[in-house]
Amino acid sequence: MIFDRLCIIGVGLIGGSIARAARLQGVSNTIVGFGRSEDLPNLQTAKHLGVIDEFYLNLADAVDKADCVIIATPVASIKTIFALLKPHWSEQTIYTDVGSTKSSVLVAAKQVFGEIPKNLVPAHPIAGAEQSGVKASVTDLFVGKRLIITPTDTTSPTALHSVKAFWEKLGSLVSIMDAGHHDGVLAATSHLPHILAFALVDMLGRKDEQNEIFKYAAGGFRDFTRIASSDPTMWLDICLANKDELIPLIEELKTELAAIQVTLQNQDSQQLFQTFTYAKNARQRFLNQFED
Amino acid sequence: MIFDRLCIIGVGLIGGSIARAARLQGVSNTIVGFGRSEDLPNLQTAKHLGVIDEFYLNLADAVDKADCVIIATPVASIKTIFALLKPHWSEQTIYTDVGSTKSSVLVAAKQVFGEIPKNLVPAHPIAGAEQSGVKASVTDLFVGKRLIITPTDTTSPTALHSVKAFWEKLGSLVSIMDAGHHDGVLAATSHLPHILAFALVDMLGRKDEQNEIFKYAAGGFRDFTRIASSDPTMWLDICLANKDELIPLIEELKTELAAIQVTLQNQDSQQLFQTFTYAKNARQRFLNQFED
Repeated sequence: MIFDRLCIIGVGLIGGSIARAARLQGVSNTIVGFGRSEDLPNLQTAKHLGVIDEFYLNLADAVDKADCVIIATPVASIKTIFALLKPHWSEQTIYTDVGSTKSSVLVAAKQVFGEIPKNLVPAHPIAGAEQSGVKASVTDLFVGKRLIITPTDTTSPTALHSVKAFWEKLGSLVSIMDAGHHDGVLAATSHLPHILAFALVDMLGRKDEQNEIFKYAAGGFRDFTRIASSDPTMWLDICLANKDELIPLIEELKTELAAIQVTLQNQDSQQLFQTFTYAKNARQRFLNQFED
Repeated sequence: MIFDRLCIIGVGLIGGSIARAARLQGVSNTIVGFGRSEDLPNLQTAKHLGVIDEFYLNLADAVDKADCVIIATPVASIKTIFALLKPHWSEQTIYTDVGSTKSSVLVAAKQVFGEIPKNLVPAHPIAGAEQSGVKASVTDLFVGKRLIITPTDTTSPTALHSVKAFWEKLGSLVSIMDAGHHDGVLAATSHLPHILAFALVDMLGRKDEQNEIFKYAAGGFRDFTRIASSDPTMWLDICLANKDELIPLIEELKTELAAIQVTLQNQDSQQLFQTFTYAKNARQRFLNQFED
């Protein structure tokens, strides 16, 4: 038992999967959900499926006596959630979130609370799926997946320890780093690839309208563009929240592409071979880690 | 029976899969392979596996009495193969290839033969795998896959018809278009994505060396970068052979990325939402075709 009463704000794919895994691992006795009135059908489904024990459309009731409140909403709404939580904020409760960007969460907390509460432990499970909603939730979404906690200098060590223990029970590989580092790493490995995939498919989609090209695209293209099928709203939130990290990386990639253009123009086989070989080997290094 | 005696120059993944499928479909009685002396172990394996009936290290013997000669070597070596074939060129034989770029094949043919031989039918099966060599060859590599034939004004209609019938027997969906169109379409749907994947992984690999980032990359990154594990030599040949199509597309993508940078900088949610949504829908259109 880590959190006797767990309250999940936003019982979607991530929130639902947390609830399922927490129940399976026996880390919480009671799991309750909170949502807005428009989330009612999803909450009803969550209860019907046994993912949560109870749900509330009233936040005061939802967080009452909770040991831990997990904010599992999109990053763009975290500030609103903080504002809603503020009147009910309890020193006895641990608050955490699952937002894909972490500096934005700290900024939102500072804006709402004046300072970052000691019992707020920002976290980000690096796991997900293209589907959304509680119906897509599963017990093993976080098993073997990385989870990053980004405490500040004032974060309560006890709260940090509990959140870490909670996620480890759910099967995650927990790392701790500062929010800025997290956002830089995720901008590179996740947000930039999404921007690239969206940009490429946007550009090629227009060509396809004029002159069928997708007809001749194969499996490599399907894999390469898979992330362009991600939820546009979620991703525009993430990209905007992390734009300060993302914009320089886009610039860097444009420079890299410009260098490749020159290499092609000059028919510099040796340079091109080096670039492609370095990339192939670097990806193998990634795969080796991924499979560990 | 379409080609009684089929000669395959380069019995690797593609050449071997052609041989296996041709045998399975009974479109050829005898299938022979040709390779260089350094290809001997691979040719021995091909014979041992029953992929080919015989192999030759001497081209004159290999093409003797062949109804069809298929050049299944990397694009960069097609000109050399044409030069080797020239003294043995027969009007009674149909010649075809599987090169990933088609204008380069026509240019090579013009350089070697003075004009494009009427009995040369350039073709490109849009199929492949990351593995190479005859051991990776399979009977169904081309089943349900696109194959593009790029005849010229002077291509023999009979030769074209035979090559089309051959590939249809192997399960391919055959399209006919001019070489320039082929190269434009493939630059967009295949060569540009490969350049992008190599460029991104090259850039991020260097960051990973300084500051572990791949550790926190997930499944989306793995799929997005899969094509960066492709063979560097093969891809530098393809990209160089098609550089005239590829360079302007890289330019276009840089412009698209620059526009996204501005959108992020201006926090223009609406524009970003439109771009991401258009891309998501365009990819769905691609998937729908792919699954047809």
